[in-house]
Amino acid sequence: MLIVMQQGVSEEDIARVIARIQAMGLIAHPIPGSSRTAIGITGNKGPLSPAEFEILPGVKTAIPVTQPFILVSREARREDTQITIAGRKIGAGHLAIIAGPCAVESVEQTLAVAHAVKSAGAHFLRGGAFKPRTSPYSFQGLEKEGLKILARAREETGLPIITEALDTESIEMVAEFADVIQIGARNMQNFPLLKKAGRCRRPVLLKRGMSATIEELLMSAEYIASEGNGGIFLCERGIRSFSTHTRNTLDLSAVPAVKAASHLPIIVDPSHGTGMRSMVAPLARAAVAVGADGLMIEVHDNPERALSDGPQALLPAQFEALMKDIRAIAEIVGLEV
Amino acid sequence: MLIVMQQGVSEEDIARVIARIQAMGLIAHPIPGSSRTAIGITGNKGPLSPAEFEILPGVKTAIPVTQPFILVSREARREDTQITIAGRKIGAGHLAIIAGPCAVESVEQTLAVAHAVKSAGAHFLRGGAFKPRTSPYSFQGLEKEGLKILARAREETGLPIITEALDTESIEMVAEFADVIQIGARNMQNFPLLKKAGRCRRPVLLKRGMSATIEELLMSAEYIASEGNGGIFLCERGIRSFSTHTRNTLDLSAVPAVKAASHLPIIVDPSHGTGMRSMVAPLARAAVAVGADGLMIEVHDNPERALSDGPQALLPAQFEALMKDIRAIAEIVGLEV
Amino acid sequence: MLIVMQQGVSEEDIARVIARIQAMGLIAHPIPGSSRTAIGITGNKGPLSPAEFEILPGVKTAIPVTQPFILVSREARREDTQITIAGRKIGAGHLAIIAGPCAVESVEQTLAVAHAVKSAGAHFLRGGAFKPRTSPYSFQGLEKEGLKILARAREETGLPIITEALDTESIEMVAEFADVIQIGARNMQNFPLLKKAGRCRRPVLLKRGMSATIEELLMSAEYIASEGNGGIFLCERGIRSFSTHTRNTLDLSAVPAVKAASHLPIIVDPSHGTGMRSMVAPLARAAVAVGADGLMIEVHDNPERALSDGPQALLPAQFEALMKDIRAIAEIVGLEV
Amino acid sequence: MLIVMQQGVSEEDIARVIARIQAMGLIAHPIPGSSRTAIGITGNKGPLSPAEFEILPGVKTAIPVTQPFILVSREARREDTQITIAGRKIGAGHLAIIAGPCAVESVEQTLAVAHAVKSAGAHFLRGGAFKPRTSPYSFQGLEKEGLKILARAREETGLPIITEALDTESIEMVAEFADVIQIGARNMQNFPLLKKAGRCRRPVLLKRGMSATIEELLMSAEYIASEGNGGIFLCERGIRSFSTHTRNTLDLSAVPAVKAASHLPIIVDPSHGTGMRSMVAPLARAAVAVGADGLMIEVHDNPERALSDGPQALLPAQFEALMKDIRAIAEIVGLEV
Repeated sequence: MLIVMQQGVSEEDIARVIARIQAMGLIAHPIPGSSRTAIGITGNKGPLSPAEFEILPGVKTAIPVTQPFILVSREARREDTQITIAGRKIGAGHLAIIAGPCAVESVEQTLAVAHAVKSAGAHFLRGGAFKPRTSPYSFQGLEKEGLKILARAREETGLPIITEALDTESIEMVAEFADVIQIGARNMQNFPLLKKAGRCRRPVLLKRGMSATIEELLMSAEYIASEGNGGIFLCERGIRSFSTHTRNTLDLSAVPAVKAASHLPIIVDPSHGTGMRSMVAPLARAAVAVGADGLMIEVHDNPERALSDGPQALLPAQFEALMKDIRAIAEIVGLEV
Repeated sequence: MLIVMQQGVSEEDIARVIARIQAMGLIAHPIPGSSRTAIGITGNKGPLSPAEFEILPGVKTAIPVTQPFILVSREARREDTQITIAGRKIGAGHLAIIAGPCAVESVEQTLAVAHAVKSAGAHFLRGGAFKPRTSPYSFQGLEKEGLKILARAREETGLPIITEALDTESIEMVAEFADVIQIGARNMQNFPLLKKAGRCRRPVLLKRGMSATIEELLMSAEYIASEGNGGIFLCERGIRSFSTHTRNTLDLSAVPAVKAASHLPIIVDPSHGTGMRSMVAPLARAAVAVGADGLMIEVHDNPERALSDGPQALLPAQFEALMKDIRAIAEIVGLEV
Repeated sequence: MLIVMQQGVSEEDIARVIARIQAMGLIAHPIPGSSRTAIGITGNKGPLSPAEFEILPGVKTAIPVTQPFILVSREARREDTQITIAGRKIGAGHLAIIAGPCAVESVEQTLAVAHAVKSAGAHFLRGGAFKPRTSPYSFQGLEKEGLKILARAREETGLPIITEALDTESIEMVAEFADVIQIGARNMQNFPLLKKAGRCRRPVLLKRGMSATIEELLMSAEYIASEGNGGIFLCERGIRSFSTHTRNTLDLSAVPAVKAASHLPIIVDPSHGTGMRSMVAPLARAAVAVGADGLMIEVHDNPERALSDGPQALLPAQFEALMKDIRAIAEIVGLEV
Repeated sequence: MLIVMQQGVSEEDIARVIARIQAMGLIAHPIPGSSRTAIGITGNKGPLSPAEFEILPGVKTAIPVTQPFILVSREARREDTQITIAGRKIGAGHLAIIAGPCAVESVEQTLAVAHAVKSAGAHFLRGGAFKPRTSPYSFQGLEKEGLKILARAREETGLPIITEALDTESIEMVAEFADVIQIGARNMQNFPLLKKAGRCRRPVLLKRGMSATIEELLMSAEYIASEGNGGIFLCERGIRSFSTHTRNTLDLSAVPAVKAASHLPIIVDPSHGTGMRSMVAPLARAAVAVGADGLMIEVHDNPERALSDGPQALLPAQFEALMKDIRAIAEIVGLEV
């Protein structure tokens, strides 16, 4: 259930509603907005009665939420959520450009790419230290060493870093180093990991699973939010269809679909979404035109030698050229880059 | 096999190669280009020997084509094909805007929509006179009456008309009235219909089937081309995936994929591709940004009363607003509208 | 709407209801059953009033049908439909075995396979004279010559023949030769072809399209039934999914799903459903175990030389071995072979 | 690389090969078979030279493995693997019946179902103590309490228990109580969990992910095997397709596909594979007919009150009736129940 407070309500009124919720053995999640405050209620086993809350002072209405997600729903918050990370903004009119290598391979490679993407205009550095690989015999990432390299790249370039956490045991270590914790597509329904990410004091980038519906994606975001972490942004990275001309089928309709159902920002990863270097730029342009809140793009200074996903990485010069188109299209659709 | 002629070769040389091909009981398909002429050979049962053709004067090289399509392949023609219909250009830098109602319902509705889309800047009028409907009890189109209404709308607005042909019996009647014959998604592998479209003297708009690969789409185009009709443009209109938040999953990667493999233009239909009015504009913008050669958009002056696919039709005012964004994005990606 | 008549109603009562329906400008479709007669009504634009029919003598009840298909629905007929073709029964407890080559290639090949499958216990001979091929350059079938060969094989073996019709122009010729007209997967939504099949006086085998839902399959069957042809049986032949270890993904759940929603028989084609010889026997066994009303299996005496789909054809000896398992499993699930 | 030893080779020869592999800094995985012993080599960065191993005494041949999985491949072991758990056999001719509730809800419910499935002939009891639920607000399982209830059910019925582990933190606790650790479909590519399962001294049931190819499934099994745990059996439980008449699309072709590529047993879960009670029995029969090594079936004594997946659970009496068909079909396909 969602309690919508009247405009200009007092802190006292809000506190009274929260106290009542807690007295019933339930959990209250205040969701502030610029025009109104809502309070999500979770923890109930059966339906709640709106009347019980509507009699409280300052309550405008109590809405039984019909969707299975509450806190991340558009009903809970009418305005788009904006997340600020080390001064960079994502969402609500701000386009965030995240770029970097698929995997952190060495200090040299990471710094070279970090400087290149920064000078081309990226706002965040991405790079995997823990890599989920289909084969147990493939390169699995530099792990803690990789996190340290990323931290050094941040120090040198000032770019906040985004890197993936693979399990409940190492997520704390990742949270220590990273500015944003990434939950990958294969872990979108790794519920213990989502819960733990919800307890970390770091924003979370949650990627859509390969065969996840938009509702399932938002339910997974709700797992994070229900643990008290509202700093979530989502990522469309291609779904699995019968189609084989790309590695995945990038579903750009996910962007308006998420925006209709939720207040969370959503970005697009055209690198994994296509798996082919020649496709990254056109689909990146399309992602901005469709209204995405950000892009996540793999860049490598020597893709032929990349230890992971080389064929989809842009060269720094290609990324720089792409940034020009991105800026121009962003302006047309009213986004600040 | 593909015979590539030397640059600046004489008509005589070309004629000699064609004669040789015909003398072998095979079919020669000259494919002129600005920088070179190629001659496709079809009709052979087994592989042909390049040497047999390379000794002829004017022949640069004979390439055994590895893909199953020849005439529509990028190997056959390096430049993008451009189709000109009643003065409007599609492809090779020209963005074509096709708009109109899903179905022709009446003179009034058709004229109203035709005038509206024309004044907003559309280049072509679309509208179905023969409608493929899942249910035998749904409105099946006005048939010949509908074709006459379209012809009248053309007369009044000057817009060339694009309308669907459903079978080998009625395609000739459609060809009599229409400027472009549309082959719908459900008929993409209706091979007798493709062959007959190949024998019509009209450009053909071929829509991708709901579960067709890019290769299958190009093979179907090859059916049309192999009958002598090279005026083909393709249309991505959404594929069927597990995803249910849209009616179909619009696969914008089909645009660069087709352009890599073929010289034919490809447009995008965001109306069928999403099935939801609110999604049409964002996906239309994305389609232009990804590099499509055109858009096909359903517009209705009274969507609530539409006899077919009302929920996905834009209102004239929405279409007009969209045209502004389209023009701006087209400029960025180097397309003339 | 569906008019359900009382048990033991007179012919006169039925005639009176039909007359009333026709007087309203609608179409009446009597659907006899062993325990009750129903009369389907089609042709109405809006909803009909049950009361208008329930006052007529002999009418038990008038049911507004909620599904979009009426005549083929389980509501219209509670008993399973059984089709009898030249003495062979399909459906309602009778398992029909249809076997033969993918394409009719020559008299010798067709007769050899026909004799082989007959001696192994097949009830019908299949074989394509008109072949829908992805490539315009592939073997397209012997056409009329092929139909004549099939007719000769029937003469020699006594097996009724099932063969595909590809378009509205040639379907009459097919109907002249064939005992059953097959509508292939690619034509499942070729509505003009379905309508014409509905006007042929031949049973129709309708294959599920590669990306068709069960509802769409039944709507296509309704097209045939609404033209007056109730001799329809359906065929699951594999759907298109992301999965690539088989040519298509055979969806055996389609069998109980169709049986729940419709009274029509449904058979399974494990040859196209898997595309691999080694998979045909296990999936054929599974199809019988799941409750299919028949099997359609490709058999070739020399698969390496087959002009179409050789890799999925069983050798005659393999087919014979499979028939033993089929008979044993059929007995367990209560089917007569 | 795979080293295949000569028949009747001595232990000494095997030890020598292993020592050589280890001396090169690589990992040796002996894979004994009845007719031959193979030794898988993992840990190499680049390709190895066969010659280096073929000169060793007792080595028949060294095969560079072309597939990305080695230890679980059919090349590594020609015979079907059979797993024995508390006296019950799975694989290589033995059909294992696993039944029980979706979730452990109470002592009473678990014991009632356990006794019912045992008396109907099940060999294993299934039941979730940790439940992966799409919504954070759904019942998440009784956790440790649930494991204790399962242990008590085993004590009372003698049935070994199979239950799911959700993360690397709780898997040890699960391994303490369970006879078989289940890795669910959502965790098929949770690589840290797979590695930890590989280090547990318990057989592992690995379910196919909703959009996993057979190769990906086998790669995930390879993760477990490469950690030294060869007691793996796989489970087909339905894939995600466009088709909506069932919750998932049960892909029975996965059974022969896995058997062709791997020596591991594979079972089928028709309960999750269809999500509908009425579909479970027909698809269970089909799974046995296709050659599966086992079935996993949800049974509940009061499905309407089930806390999870009630609509797909069989009633005990339905399960008992199904067991009769299963035994009869198993006999036909040569399986011992």
